Order: sequence, then structure tokens, then C-alpha cells
Amino acid sequence: MTTSDAITPVSSSNENVGAGKSIGWHKGYVEGSRPGLRVPVRQVHLTNGEDVTLYDTSGPYTDPAVTTDVRRGLAPVRGGWIEGRGDTEEYEGRPVRPEDDGRSPASRDGLRNLDAVFPGGARRPRRSRDGRPVTQLAYARRGEITPEMEYVAIRENVAPEVVGEEIAAGRAVLPANVNHPEIEPMIIGKRFLVKVNANIGNSAVTSSIEEEVEKMTWATRWGADTVMDLSTGRNIHTTREWILRNSPVPIGTVPLYQALEKVDGRAEELTWEIYRDTVVEQAEQGVDYMTVHAGVRLPYVPLTARRKTGIVSRGGSIMAAWCLAHHKESFLYENFEELCELLATYDVTYSLGDGLRPGSLADANDEAQFAELRTLGELNTIAKRYGVQTMVEGPGHVPMHKIKENIDLQQEICEEAPFYTLGPLTTDVAPAYDHITSGIGAAMIAWWGTAMLCYVTPKEHLGLPDRDDVKTGVITYKIAAHAADLAKGHPGAQDWDDALSDARFEFRWEDQFNLALDPDTARAFHDETLPAEPAKTAHFCSMCGPKFCSMKISRSITEQFGGDAAATPQEIEAGMLEKSKEFAASGSRVYLPLAD
Amino acid sequence: MTTSDAITPVSSSNENVGAGKSIGWHKGYVEGSRPGLRVPVRQVHLTNGEDVTLYDTSGPYTDPAVTTDVRRGLAPVRGGWIEGRGDTEEYEGRPVRPEDDGRSPASRDGLRNLDAVFPGGARRPRRSRDGRPVTQLAYARRGEITPEMEYVAIRENVAPEVVGEEIAAGRAVLPANVNHPEIEPMIIGKRFLVKVNANIGNSAVTSSIEEEVEKMTWATRWGADTVMDLSTGRNIHTTREWILRNSPVPIGTVPLYQALEKVDGRAEELTWEIYRDTVVEQAEQGVDYMTVHAGVRLPYVPLTARRKTGIVSRGGSIMAAWCLAHHKESFLYENFEELCELLATYDVTYSLGDGLRPGSLADANDEAQFAELRTLGELNTIAKRYGVQTMVEGPGHVPMHKIKENIDLQQEICEEAPFYTLGPLTTDVAPAYDHITSGIGAAMIAWWGTAMLCYVTPKEHLGLPDRDDVKTGVITYKIAAHAADLAKGHPGAQDWDDALSDARFEFRWEDQFNLALDPDTARAFHDETLPAEPAKTAHFCSMCGPKFCSMKISRSITEQFGGDAAATPQEIEAGMLEKSKEFAASGSRVYLPLAD
Repeated sequence: MTTSDAITPVSSSNENVGAGKSIGWHKGYVEGSRPGLRVPVRQVHLTNGEDVTLYDTSGPYTDPAVTTDVRRGLAPVRGGWIEGRGDTEEYEGRPVRPEDDGRSPASRDGLRNLDAVFPGGARRPRRSRDGRPVTQLAYARRGEITPEMEYVAIRENVAPEVVGEEIAAGRAVLPANVNHPEIEPMIIGKRFLVKVNANIGNSAVTSSIEEEVEKMTWATRWGADTVMDLSTGRNIHTTREWILRNSPVPIGTVPLYQALEKVDGRAEELTWEIYRDTVVEQAEQGVDYMTVHAGVRLPYVPLTARRKTGIVSRGGSIMAAWCLAHHKESFLYENFEELCELLATYDVTYSLGDGLRPGSLADANDEAQFAELRTLGELNTIAKRYGVQTMVEGPGHVPMHKIKENIDLQQEICEEAPFYTLGPLTTDVAPAYDHITSGIGAAMIAWWGTAMLCYVTPKEHLGLPDRDDVKTGVITYKIAAHAADLAKGHPGAQDWDDALSDARFEFRWEDQFNLALDPDTARAFHDETLPAEPAKTAHFCSMCGPKFCSMKISRSITEQFGGDAAATPQEIEAGMLEKSKEFAASGSRVYLPLAD
Repeated sequence: MTTSDAITPVSSSNENVGAGKSIGWHKGYVEGSRPGLRVPVRQVHLTNGEDVTLYDTSGPYTDPAVTTDVRRGLAPVRGGWIEGRGDTEEYEGRPVRPEDDGRSPASRDGLRNLDAVFPGGARRPRRSRDGRPVTQLAYARRGEITPEMEYVAIRENVAPEVVGEEIAAGRAVLPANVNHPEIEPMIIGKRFLVKVNANIGNSAVTSSIEEEVEKMTWATRWGADTVMDLSTGRNIHTTREWILRNSPVPIGTVPLYQALEKVDGRAEELTWEIYRDTVVEQAEQGVDYMTVHAGVRLPYVPLTARRKTGIVSRGGSIMAAWCLAHHKESFLYENFEELCELLATYDVTYSLGDGLRPGSLADANDEAQFAELRTLGELNTIAKRYGVQTMVEGPGHVPMHKIKENIDLQQEICEEAPFYTLGPLTTDVAPAYDHITSGIGAAMIAWWGTAMLCYVTPKEHLGLPDRDDVKTGVITYKIAAHAADLAKGHPGAQDWDDALSDARFEFRWEDQFNLALDPDTARAFHDETLPAEPAKTAHFCSMCGPKFCSMKISRSITEQFGGDAAATPQEIEAGMLEKSKEFAASGSRVYLPLAD
């Protein structure tokens, strides 16, 4: 969010105006203290000669100097750092089985669809050498500043020590599986910029591997900080492999979905062993964080029976069904400590799922929801004891006046562990617009302390999002996140708004577009009514027309009263009569001569 | 928001499913105590036999029993009520001049374009018989419950006395010019449902009369409670006549825009006489409320000189330019009492404009803005003394943490007069998405007490909104308004959400669509991935697919644990083991047999 001399622009990717003038934006990098540690930024070059540097999540895809190939995957930027720590080792790993892709072991297509197999080659997975935690939390507690921590410190414009302290205290997580060396590290915590997650994933009904990989790169291009792969159809394993190898951002999953596929959708046939095996499978692939619905305990299930919309979390409903079928306590809750030991050996971050989140305003903040939250608090404490990074998921559907209680209670119960909320939606009556119903709640809860927002697309409740829906969801949530950064007074957050407002006031249309969250759409909307190139430097837009443009009149006032001078209000007032006479003498024209 | 036996469905306008089954929605009416007083409602008929009644702003256009013709205008539903009071009289009125349509008196097209003249015929205007106020405020103070008050009481589901009290106290306005008998009365005040205004209006650059009339009917179809005609190009008078004669909702204007056209855009040539004449012209046509920027006083202009974005209100910048040119106090401020006398004789409601509202986050809540607000407080007191209904306009661009101060201060300074805010936008960085940046702020400020929200469309800052933008703006703001109604605990507001949530949980897709704020888009999105008719009754959507649908699993839990029974949680728990055994005995199938 600040201009910096430390930036090395490596390429020019959007020069669309002005002969010989390099305006537009470039992918740039800020160098860290270690060789090879360079943090990507989006550097916007304005027509007035100023530069504005913005956070960049788009990965190497927007760097013309880098050749990317989705069939080979991204370069392992973290590879050397992970190896350099010397606390992990490669090992044989769990063999991939036809069931991992939702296929019958005995079926003719029992071997994975060869076309779909990731062609970048097999990898040997990596894990802790001695079973001790290899997590950023463990390092932070020892006072180590890892390259990953330095990386996010540069991204966030804070001292590396702040990053270390927040992680050590459990107030922030840096999701970074040792088997996902391709990611550009990022941090999730209330002291940092609010983050946005985009869900993708195919289902039994629609969509393909290629579409999902494209959605991932598309989502990060528009600003998604993490991506969750929620695939539930066939080729789950292979789809995930493609996504992981090509993702510059941490990837999250819900292992329960794949485990359920392995028992052909029969929840009661799930076992701890099948679940554990699935977690190992995904951890070896490099999944950075996993949603675990261990808070859906047997005694809480009846609390949902008289809700308006019961259980709306897929994971929550699967676990509830299992509990009912066996009349036993959840196997996730019962085996939580073993799961902690496992995740710590890969540095998989917990996202403690809120399986009993409300699915309608009527169910918000009810007994079932808060009973589960208290259990998530217990589990958070246990996970920390095992050195596992942990965040906690939140709702859902909540009317505005009940939102604050959610974040306040979560922060209290979960010792300030990062809150990761889905919206919340502030009304139930607008299917097809739930990015907006939830964007409202998301902005508010992020202002009050939520660290990461899970986006909602216009297709929520109606169908699977396509590419356009993904973009709309991400942009809406970037707005909510940035609005929250501003309200929290995050250092530097307002520099971006100020730069755009300056450009607006000075009629630098191209600068407005290039600074916009979505330059393409802003430019297209402007061009709909005033398409000609000169209109982009004209002192009006079609909203008001040339005579009525308040910005133009106001510029004129600013110029008269010396807005740029260092005069005091008193001096300004004193000069006013004089200026007024000048104004009359110059023909009393507030408006500039019009071109048309 | 409630089901009611008093409703008389008069027509069937959307029966799209089921042979012989009348589901969908109908235009209905609730009869009042007076003959001819019938309040329109949108009555949604659900597949389970229930009815849900919703507030309806769409006017006679959605009633197939009524023949409408935009060339003749709507029937004067208030005509008898206005005449019946006996305190107004018809008079000759001000002659319409070529300048009223922005044409030169001497030009060949000095007479108005005959094609554009409203063909419904000339009307004789009406005003107070004796110069005394004929305002709803004056009537309310006398303890009269007018037909208009009874009408809005039915619409809002409150006692007529509540309406009278709120108007009498100045906490609510019922904009209803005696020359606009076509409107279906509505009320604006914090004790009532939050309202939404849609701006339309042509400009010198683009758009036509026909387009503007169509935008008005389109905006009210989607829920706009009032419409402001902000036209600035030619044919201002004629465009307004077409809009007024066809509008079922109150129409607002900014007379200053037309006055400026009359002096060919030279702000310094404006005079009180030209302005006053324009107000008479518009009041005679039937404008229900007028934005008056009388708070932009000479001493405040220098306060804006060092702002980031100066003055962004068009009216504000025109008045500032006038003050500069003459180095005199604003003629609107100086002649405010005469203006009050004038407005009271037509019952035109004041909307005291915030000409110095911030145009960027950097300028929010600054000295200039609050200096003007204090003046608006003075003017509000004066207006009330003259019996003029008054609301007060608010910002603008305000970060979330500075929003509450705006409504709190306005309510204190303006004696709880209705606040009418533009957004506010919570960040400056998202041109093309300012319906969303502002929808967030709008929901929050409405929760805290704003009575009416002025919508913002995706084209804000970029160009003139088209039909699609108008719809997007209105729907976004209906979401914000309804979210606020819910957070305020408005009686009955949640019934709508509950009905939709029930339909969602019970997989009644058609009911979900028909209850949605935008049924067309909800249905279209669903059909994109699951277009077949059976999918609309299927127990899943493409989001999760048949095996993973949490709603389906959860239904099953509800059925097991007797969600519909009147059992206590203890009884439910007691029955749990028993049910669990039954579950196993029945084959342990949580999932229903699948159709595909």
C-alpha cells in the first residue's frame, strides 16, 4: 500500500495509454534479506509520475518474464527454505489408489484416467524427520524468523518480529504445508490485512478438472488469498494435484468429503481409519489447511432438530449422520489428539469447522451454534499444545445486530485464534445476490476482528459458480476486506483510496482505472457512454455532463483558494475577497471552455 | 410481511408451475376504512398452501386488471382525498415557457418539441386556498388522520395513530404534493420500513424522455420507494411531466439543476427570482420533495479548499460557485423562510441537501461537512415552524468506523428528522462496484437510524446508469434496507426470511424463487446448471450434488428427532437412543433413494 524504492519492476504487462509513457501497471518484486526471497507486488504507474504499490496475489501468471505451464506446475519458491531447515525428510508415501479418485478398485477404470493424471511427474512427499512439529507455530515459539515470516512481513509492511509474535501467540496462522513449496507465503490474523478465500471444486453434477484449475488462477488473479478445493465428484485426488501444483496461494480442503466418497456416500460407514488415511493422502499432496468438523458432537445433534434450517454445513451434516447411525461420540472429536500429531508433521493448519453454523437468520446465535463454538475453543487449546496452527470457522446467516456477538465470543473462547467466517449473510431473501447480502456482514465482522472471509458467490444456494461468479465473489469480498482494513486503521490501507480519489478529482481517468479493484470493468463502464479516447482525459463523465460536473466546479474552487498551498484557514479566508474579485475580472467563468 | 385475510386478490400475474395449482404471486389489495382506499400488496402463494404478503411499490403496472397508458398517465387515486379536504383550489398557474425545457425563447424550436409534450392534456395546478399550510405535517399536528396516513399505516402494519404521531413530531415525512394525486402514499421515518430512492434523469450527453419514464417504472417494479428525476439536459420540464403523470411513487428533484439551465449554465447569473420561479414551476407539476442546498453558506466554502475531493455535490458546487462569484451569502439561505411559505402551500417536502458531503474517505466527517450539518439543523427548525415536512440528506463516502457519528449527530442536531443518505461508500477503490461499496455502508447506517437510502448504481463515478444498472442498484439497496429492518427488529420483517428459509429447507424451489427479491434471476441461475423441470422439486442443487446435500441430510435428522413435535430438548434427547436403533433397523440410510 505504500510507494517503495525497494521495488524492482521486472516486466511491463499493461501499457495501454500514451506514446512513450510507461503508465499502467507492472508486476514488481520487493527483495528480502535472503537471496531468492522476493515478494511480488502490483506496481501502478500514474500519469502524474507517482507510483502506487499494491498487494499482489496473482502469482507468476501475471509476470511476463516467467513462463508458466499448468502441465508442469509452478516453481517451488519455498523448496530451499524447507530443505534448509533440515527438520523434514522425503519418504515413500502412501500409494495412490483408484478409490482416491472415487473409482471402484475393481472397475475397468480403476486406474486413474490417464488423461487426467497430473503430467508434472510423481513427487516423493516430505514430513517431519522425527515426528516433532515442523510448523511455523513451533518455529515462532522458538523465536525463529523463518523466510516465510520475513516474506509476509514485507507483504504486510510490518516488522518480521510482529509476524513471529502473532504466530507464536496463536493470533495468526501462516498456512504452509512442507509439501506445498509452490506457494507465496501469506498470513491470516487480525493484526494483518483481512484475507479472502475463494471456494472452487467440481461436483458430481458438473464441471471438470481444467475448469477448476482455471477458476483457481482466475480467483487469485482477482485477489483471492487462499483457495479451498471442495470437489466432491470423481477425480478428487487428481483435481487436487493439478490445483496444488499450480497454486501460488495456500489450498484448503475438507477431507471428510473425499472420505465419504471412499465409502460411496454412506456416512455411517465412515471410520477414523478411512478419515486418517485421507488426511495423510492430502497432507502428502500439500494441502495447507484442512477444515475439520470435530466440534459436531453427539449431544449437540438434537439441539438442531427444531431449527428452521437444521444443519446446513455439509461436513456438519455428515458427522451428525454418523453420530446418529452409531449413537457414538464423533470419531473426529475422539481422535483429535492423534490428528494433531499428524498435522504437525506436515505443517497442515487446522480450520476448525463450524458444522452447526446457522443456515437462516432464524437459527443465528442459537444453542447448537454456540455449544459447538465452546467445543472449538477446547480443540483450539489442544491443537496449540501439539504445535498445530489453528483458525476457527464462523457463520453463516446472521442478522446485523447479532454479528458482533459472534466475533466477540469466538475471540474470547478461542484465545484470539484467527476467525474465518462465511459472510455472514444478513438476510435470507435474496438468492442470486448472496454475494451482496453476505458482503455486508463480511465487512462488518472483519472490521470487528475476523481475519479471513470466505467468499460467497451469486450462485450460492442455487448452483455451482462459474468463472464470472468466481470473479464477482472475489471482487465483492475484496471490497469487504479492504473496507474493514480501512475501518481498522490498518497502516497504509487508505493510501490506495487516497491515490484513487486524487486521480478522480484531477480527472486522471486512466489512473482511476488502473488503481481500481477491477480496472477492466471500470474502463468498460466508462466507455459505454463516452467511448472516445479524448473522453478519458475530459473533465466530465456522462453522469453529469460537461456543464454540471461538480468535480470540475470544485477544482476551480480549490485552485482559487489555494488548496495546494500551505495556507491556514484564516489566510485562505482573508484571501477570499481578493480571489472573488479576480474571479469576476476573469469573466466569472467557473466552467472551462467546452470541447463540444 | 404478514398473511392477512383482508386481502382481495384481483388478478393472477404469475402462474408458472403446476396444472390447476394457483401458485406464484398475485397483485392484491388491502381495503382501508374509506371507500376507494385500497393498499396494493404482493401476495405470494406457496406450494404448501400458505400465503406471504409483501410490500409492493410497483404501482398499477403489475395489475392486469388495470389498463395503463403512459401517454395518458395513471389514475389520480388521491384526487378525491385532496379535494375533499377543501383547503386547496385550482388556479391558472404559471405559463410553461420554452426556457423551462432548456430552449432559447427566440429559437426556432422555442416552442416545445411537440412530439415530446405530454399528451395527457394540460392540468390546472392546485395550491392552498388561503396560503396556510396544506401539509401532512399540519394535519398531523391538528390530530387529523388523513387518508394518506391511513394508507401508509396499512402498508406498514402499524396503527394510524403511530403514523400521525411520527409525522407530527417531525420524525417522519409523507411526501405528497397536492399536484401529484397519482401516488400511492408512503412514509419515510426511522420507526417505519427503511425506504430506497432511485435516481434517474437524462443528461446533456445521453438518454431520452422515453428511457427515463421506462427507468422509473422499472425502478418501482424492483422496489424503489421514491424516484428522483435529476435530468440536466434539454426537455427537463417535459421529461418531468411524463414521469410525474406516470409515477406511483413520490418524485423528488433538485430545482437548482433546472434553474442553472435557465441561465445557460452560468452559476453567477442565478438569482433568487429564477430559482423561486423554478420551484413554483415544479411544485405546480407535482414534485413531492425537493433537494435544497441552503446549507452551503459562504463561510463554509473555504473549508473545502484543502479537501482531497473538494465539493462533489453538483448542487453544492453550483451554490459555492455562486457565493464565490458574488462574495455574498447564499440566496437559498437568505430566502429560506419565503421558500418555506411557498412549499407549504403545495405540500412539497424539503430534502435539505448536503452540498458539502465528502467525496472521498479522506474528507469524511470533516469541518466543512459538519458545519453544513449544523446549518441544516437550523433550517430544519425553521421549516417545521412553517409546517413544511422535512428530511435531511447525508453522505457520501465514509469509512465504516465513521458512519455511526453521522447518524447520531444528524439525529441530535436535526431533532430526529428523517435522515436520507447516499450510501455511504465504505471505500473509494472499486469504481464499477460502488453499489456494493455503498450497500455495505447503507445497511449499517439504516440499522442505526437512516430512514431512506439513496441508491448507488454500478455506473456511479463512471457514467449514466442504464436499465440493468437501475435494477442492480435497486435490488442492492432493497437488500441493505431489509437487512436494516431485520436488525432493527421491525415487526414482521423476519417473516419474509423465515418463509424463504422454510422453502429452502423443504426443497420447495418454486417457492424460493417466488419469495426471492429477484425471482427471475434466482430461477435463471438455478436453471443454468439444473435446467430440467424435475430439478426444481429435486432434493439437491448442483452446488453439492445429490449425495452431499446437507439440507437433505439435515431434513432426515429433523424427521428423526421430531422437529415438528412439541417435545422439549430433554424429551428429544431421551428419544435419541430409541431413534438411533430405528435408524439402524431401517437400513442405516440417511439418504433417500436417488432419482438419477
